[in-house]
Amino acid sequence: MRIHIQNPPGEDLFAVTPQQWHDAVARAGAIGAGHTVTFGNDDAAFAAAMGETEALLAQPPNIAGRFPCHAPALSLIFCLAAGVEKLAPFERLPEGVIVVNNRGVHGAKTGEFAAMALLMLNSHFPELAAAQREAAWRPIFAPTLRGKRVTVIGAGDLGGAAARQARHFGAHVTGVRTRAVAHPDFDEMVAVEALDRVLPGGEFLVLACPLTAATRNLMDRRRLGMLPRGAGLVNIGRGALWDQEALCDLLESGHLGGAVVDVFAPEPLPAGHRMWATRNLMITPHISADSPVTYNPDSLDIVFRNLAAWREGRSMPNQVDLARGY
Amino acid sequence: MRIHIQNPPGEDLFAVTPQQWHDAVARAGAIGAGHTVTFGNDDAAFAAAMGETEALLAQPPNIAGRFPCHAPALSLIFCLAAGVEKLAPFERLPEGVIVVNNRGVHGAKTGEFAAMALLMLNSHFPELAAAQREAAWRPIFAPTLRGKRVTVIGAGDLGGAAARQARHFGAHVTGVRTRAVAHPDFDEMVAVEALDRVLPGGEFLVLACPLTAATRNLMDRRRLGMLPRGAGLVNIGRGALWDQEALCDLLESGHLGGAVVDVFAPEPLPAGHRMWATRNLMITPHISADSPVTYNPDSLDIVFRNLAAWREGRSMPNQVDLARGY
Repeated sequence: MRIHIQNPPGEDLFAVTPQQWHDAVARAGAIGAGHTVTFGNDDAAFAAAMGETEALLAQPPNIAGRFPCHAPALSLIFCLAAGVEKLAPFERLPEGVIVVNNRGVHGAKTGEFAAMALLMLNSHFPELAAAQREAAWRPIFAPTLRGKRVTVIGAGDLGGAAARQARHFGAHVTGVRTRAVAHPDFDEMVAVEALDRVLPGGEFLVLACPLTAATRNLMDRRRLGMLPRGAGLVNIGRGALWDQEALCDLLESGHLGGAVVDVFAPEPLPAGHRMWATRNLMITPHISADSPVTYNPDSLDIVFRNLAAWREGRSMPNQVDLARGY
Repeated sequence: MRIHIQNPPGEDLFAVTPQQWHDAVARAGAIGAGHTVTFGNDDAAFAAAMGETEALLAQPPNIAGRFPCHAPALSLIFCLAAGVEKLAPFERLPEGVIVVNNRGVHGAKTGEFAAMALLMLNSHFPELAAAQREAAWRPIFAPTLRGKRVTVIGAGDLGGAAARQARHFGAHVTGVRTRAVAHPDFDEMVAVEALDRVLPGGEFLVLACPLTAATRNLMDRRRLGMLPRGAGLVNIGRGALWDQEALCDLLESGHLGGAVVDVFAPEPLPAGHRMWATRNLMITPHISADSPVTYNPDSLDIVFRNLAAWREGRSMPNQVDLARGY
């Protein structure tokens, strides 16, 4: 198969290296053999490759805006990301092309981030950090997470990992997903239609769902206001899942207790944006899900696992449903 | 038995209330019955009670400096704390008095704090927080804790809880204690004489031991310098366990990667102290171990458990060895 890997422009920690490809081929067995692979990280390399490429591997930002283009042989796009919203609208992609994501590689790192964020919020860490900046000794004694109620929106790789860690610390975790199908990592699961009913009961809210037409601005000002006073929020999904201005207003007013936020609209968050300095809001720059050590190896293993399914006519475990957007 | 509870002066979240005492008596069964209890929080109440008090309950700061005094009936001092160093020198206490601490009540909360601190250090959170203060988008991508090496000094309630959480995230945990006796929460245990040998191998160091004559300044400048470049440190023991100035120097120079510090010498940390503003040092004001919801109930249960052992002539599980200091 003719495979092209479009890497980020310039030096990048997450560029797929020929060595990583070679190692993944060695791990893959039969399905790894016999491919012709090209690497590129600029417009010329992309254009040169697409005349014959049958499978394209790339992080979505590296190929966003490149379609429609002359790609007569392209059958498969392997997105080296879980969220594929940057490829939308999907009508611009070649007809019949199959989009595959890498869901499954983010769980371990995301679980750690979610655990850290929940423990920080439960400890009032944002307030303690503010006290440190003032050189002020202002103890706040907090009970443990045990028995606290956490709502997690999204029950995929990220949401499941967050729920697992919250339950490790004894929290009671309610999941919110498209349909109320039970999930082993959650104490209970409700359909998104029941979101308004569960929001007031959760002392912590974790956003861990994909950004789609259905989830954009899901946590709007009205819903953020339904959270109980002092609630802590974590966003490891996408910035456009909530109303950032309303979030800031509710943190400044003290209605919300704190937030640990890893994703923003837009990214990078502009220097003048009010979120940088909003009270009790702690910012991390979209680092919650990606380990530089395991990201590409794990992603390439998923590529070959899906390629094997495709060759054998089985359903691909990571195929994106373009109608749903994830 | 005549029991006196010397509470902190003024309003205090951790004052033992008559209701908490009443509830603990109800839980305790036979050993809870028939006691006469007095409460006080000032000099007069202490002096008035000590003429007849047989058992004294107090946090060490509330009774530090009050001995020697007229306390002819005093047999037992129940310290509502794990560390009793504030009562030293112990020669000032009435001869033959038994000191009991509340080790065991801090584990759950301390485990959460240790998990949070290790995850923050592993994520380079101190650097990310500094970037936020500059409104600068500076991503740092870090691998997970899995396989990282953590050294924990102290294998009691605190050290065990820290080790357990580190191992939950897949870290390899080496314990350091007086004798190299195996412990189920540690991958390996070495005696304190081997400290110099293990320090260079640990990417993270957690101080979780009591402050005694043997541990004071245990992590001096020389030993802090033996940690590998970029190491992360957590102190949930006591500030005098390490050389605070050397810590600051090594953080400022970049040799040490970051520190999350909950305990200081002195406390409260004075407003002008350099630690408040040391690079990559995150300060919490001695809040790592105490949950206001469970602290007194759990402590009082320990009091009655030990009292039962004492009445029956068994060894008391929480008796402090005054020669060792813990």
